[in-house]
Amino acid sequence: MRYVIKLAYDGTHYGGWQVQKNSITVQQRVEEALSLLLGKSVRVTASGRTDAGVHAEGQVAHFNAETTVPPERMAEALNVYLPSDIRVMASAAAPENFDAIRSAKKKTYCYKFYVSRIQNPLSDRFAAWVKPPVNLQRLRYICGCFEGVHDFKAYCSSGSSAQTTVREIYSVSVTDKQTSYGTDVCVRVCGNGFLYNMVRTMVGTMLYFAAETISEEDIKQSLAGGGRELVGKTMPARGLTLESVDYGFKLF
Amino acid sequence: MRYVIKLAYDGTHYGGWQVQKNSITVQQRVEEALSLLLGKSVRVTASGRTDAGVHAEGQVAHFNAETTVPPERMAEALNVYLPSDIRVMASAAAPENFDAIRSAKKKTYCYKFYVSRIQNPLSDRFAAWVKPPVNLQRLRYICGCFEGVHDFKAYCSSGSSAQTTVREIYSVSVTDKQTSYGTDVCVRVCGNGFLYNMVRTMVGTMLYFAAETISEEDIKQSLAGGGRELVGKTMPARGLTLESVDYGFKLF
Repeated sequence: MRYVIKLAYDGTHYGGWQVQKNSITVQQRVEEALSLLLGKSVRVTASGRTDAGVHAEGQVAHFNAETTVPPERMAEALNVYLPSDIRVMASAAAPENFDAIRSAKKKTYCYKFYVSRIQNPLSDRFAAWVKPPVNLQRLRYICGCFEGVHDFKAYCSSGSSAQTTVREIYSVSVTDKQTSYGTDVCVRVCGNGFLYNMVRTMVGTMLYFAAETISEEDIKQSLAGGGRELVGKTMPARGLTLESVDYGFKLF
Repeated sequence: MRYVIKLAYDGTHYGGWQVQKNSITVQQRVEEALSLLLGKSVRVTASGRTDAGVHAEGQVAHFNAETTVPPERMAEALNVYLPSDIRVMASAAAPENFDAIRSAKKKTYCYKFYVSRIQNPLSDRFAAWVKPPVNLQRLRYICGCFEGVHDFKAYCSSGSSAQTTVREIYSVSVTDKQTSYGTDVCVRVCGNGFLYNMVRTMVGTMLYFAAETISEEDIKQSLAGGGRELVGKTMPARGLTLESVDYGFKLF
């Protein structure tokens, strides 16, 4: 039987989702928990990797297992064996032919940063620090540029194994909130798929545009197969959270 | 010359504000930073202690020092020597006769918890986990009971050295926000002073009332010199943040 689970994790102390040498990953911890629960090793497949230090609020994964644990109780059963910075928030029986990677229709990432003259210890866990000023009007203006089908080659760090660098972005939006020390900003990006470091480089590029370091023309060229020199810096992992994965139907 | 500083800290890894044996405290780290900056040891006095694990967004403290560092640059100068979970957010020359403890007119604490069926790793850093249901209407209703001048003896953990347990609470309010997994709740308490563990026990008591474990009559008795058996559990430190200290005039 195939199970589908929804995961939330604080990625601070992990080398990302995917199992690898030299660092502990979220996938490893989830597979260890499953192995403790089921007494045998099980491979878990997530909708996509999250990079080292990136968080998830609604990562989706599947695995096959023969067990008497009812699908909707799998979440609680697994949480017993997981460290407190990883939690299965929901579980269910997967629909027929469901595959966490191939069935995914769209993903939503949220990149958070806070604008403050001084670094704020209460914001650092899940947001990047950006010094003022940030022209939010320019940041909002440039969102539309990224929407649509583009070649995101310039936004993809080397080391990616993607076969194509073309992706469709459905929406990019900016929300902001005043705080006692400045402004909290969230850039929400929804698309059909994302390359390695793509959202973080997009947000870095948006900030370069906001600061008038690069022009709208640079960004348009970067999205038409242009090179890495046209885009901004890749923002720190700590600000990025995989918010949700949409499969076109209700899973839980 | 007397300096006044405003501090923000993530209290997770500290044994509270006050210097003590057996654990590293925020005061110790600030005094170490000052000592590195000034080349001599300086005592720092905060508006009040925060307990182990409690956070601060706007703790205020003063110290005396003879140095050429301009008051408004003291924040940056100290931050060079502070760990990243403690930051001086503002600094100034203290007004005449200013004392961080005795000049304080009111303090505002925010106690955060999240209501969710499953523990959420993205919320745990600065909020306590409470399982549903929480009757927010009852939680809001009981706020008014705490306002005014009361004897908070029942809300004070043993170990307090306070001379009187009478305090005035100016306001108690509840705000809430729906999230993907439940509800984020903040109980904001403003008063002229607080006893050891008082806010955390108040919130525990409010939750007992919300769950109909104790009655309004119990709470009224607890505030009229009644005993510890009338009140709820002390909530975890992680949910508590000292938001601001008000001196009746602008310091920074």
